[in-house]
Amino acid sequence: MKFLRVGPPGAERPAVLGPDGTAYDLTGLTPELDGAFLARLDRAELAAAVAGGTLPVLDLAGQRIGSPVARPGKVVCVGLNYRDHAAEAGAAIPAEPVLFLKASNTVVGPDDEVLVPRGATKTDYEVELAVVIGRTARYLENEQQAAECIAGYTVSNDVTERAFQLERGGQWDKGKCCETFNPLGPYLVTPDEVGDPQGLELKLWVNGELRQHGSTAEMIFPVLTVVSYISQFMVLEPGDVISTGTPAGVTMGRPGTPFLQPGDVMELEIGGLGRQRQVLGKA
Amino acid sequence: MKFLRVGPPGAERPAVLGPDGTAYDLTGLTPELDGAFLARLDRAELAAAVAGGTLPVLDLAGQRIGSPVARPGKVVCVGLNYRDHAAEAGAAIPAEPVLFLKASNTVVGPDDEVLVPRGATKTDYEVELAVVIGRTARYLENEQQAAECIAGYTVSNDVTERAFQLERGGQWDKGKCCETFNPLGPYLVTPDEVGDPQGLELKLWVNGELRQHGSTAEMIFPVLTVVSYISQFMVLEPGDVISTGTPAGVTMGRPGTPFLQPGDVMELEIGGLGRQRQVLGKA
Repeated sequence: MKFLRVGPPGAERPAVLGPDGTAYDLTGLTPELDGAFLARLDRAELAAAVAGGTLPVLDLAGQRIGSPVARPGKVVCVGLNYRDHAAEAGAAIPAEPVLFLKASNTVVGPDDEVLVPRGATKTDYEVELAVVIGRTARYLENEQQAAECIAGYTVSNDVTERAFQLERGGQWDKGKCCETFNPLGPYLVTPDEVGDPQGLELKLWVNGELRQHGSTAEMIFPVLTVVSYISQFMVLEPGDVISTGTPAGVTMGRPGTPFLQPGDVMELEIGGLGRQRQVLGKA
Repeated sequence: MKFLRVGPPGAERPAVLGPDGTAYDLTGLTPELDGAFLARLDRAELAAAVAGGTLPVLDLAGQRIGSPVARPGKVVCVGLNYRDHAAEAGAAIPAEPVLFLKASNTVVGPDDEVLVPRGATKTDYEVELAVVIGRTARYLENEQQAAECIAGYTVSNDVTERAFQLERGGQWDKGKCCETFNPLGPYLVTPDEVGDPQGLELKLWVNGELRQHGSTAEMIFPVLTVVSYISQFMVLEPGDVISTGTPAGVTMGRPGTPFLQPGDVMELEIGGLGRQRQVLGKA
């Protein structure tokens, strides 16, 4: 099952795709695709409604796609979760997951403009598998419990300004929280449809050139371990998003490659989760 | 003008204190003390309503006080913003503000229980002046613009688990985002009533012993500088909270002093902003 939000920023309508790709409007069932909806979601019941033809069809032609979750309560990110990325970043393989937060007002739609911040010199991309939480997670005891807390998966671009992240003192957050720095979507794909989250191919292109090409099989800490781990340090709530780290190929790891500039185009794809495309603009 | 939220967790009523300390129920004007309310607040109009006797009186006796802002969009913190605290933490005086985020579901009321996390060994306190944002702040150009974005001030306890923060790899967030780790309140006090935000006395006691005693005059980066600075890296929105750093006296800086344990009592006070009291419990 694939959920999405369709329409102008701030006025998106919640929708679900049927088995044949037809979009159905969920406005009659929920005002938003948010934590409250995900927490009470009964997939079987919703599938029956789709099959029964009781939901209005939504025409997607020419419509903007928004982030598949309305403003998350928080976006938790795992740093250095692929060996090849840790190596290119000049960092040691972490002994346990490295965590940081991204401000949730960085979230934009999968094809929205991404702004190079004022004063930026090293704006970079990171394709990541994102997990959307569907049930409150607190001190989870095992991977089975972690699986039960996952509402679905989506594509995340963890856009980062490396100079702000690494050269401006202290923590990474300065380079992670800039306006428009987290395209999410296009779909929230439910776990039954994703299958093994450790068998997904990730790709990212800049101006048509393939820059990142990895597989979630290469994660140091797999998805269920990460969800369970995070729940030892903070309470995860329905609608929260976890970005699980990026494979090698970021600009920082390619000496001589120019960082992102206004006018550049990023495209991202994760197997089964769909595709994003962002044009860079100027803040 | 002092705003507060009164009632059980999740069912607080918005209120304002009149000049004589009487509380008035704002439920007829707004469902919540949140960003939307702060953004449209007209203080003169509200003062007239209070003086005109048109608002219902709210009896505070025996009632719980909640955080004065309903779930903030984000909580941005400034690290090492007092020289004496940087020294006790063994850190250099930062050349520019150190920033990190606290998950906004850590926010609780000023007198709510604070939980020592499971596996914690070094749970610590930090009294801080918190700024509440009232207007969207993006690339502010000067301190005057920063002042116009401030809805008010409140007391924050930036509770921190030092072992999670410093000994578990990577960023500070693991020790900053634990459940109940951000008591806020009791009041949101408007800037006209606070006066100079750099002239406030801060105190924190543990089990009656004065542990922190500083003044916001000792900040390395003053409030308006901090607000303007943060707006260069991220968009601040109405209802967002900024914790401006803690003075010396945290447990980490007092070798031999035991860290917080269940049953301990923290009390915090900032001049003109009121007082907090939390009993430690166990997660």
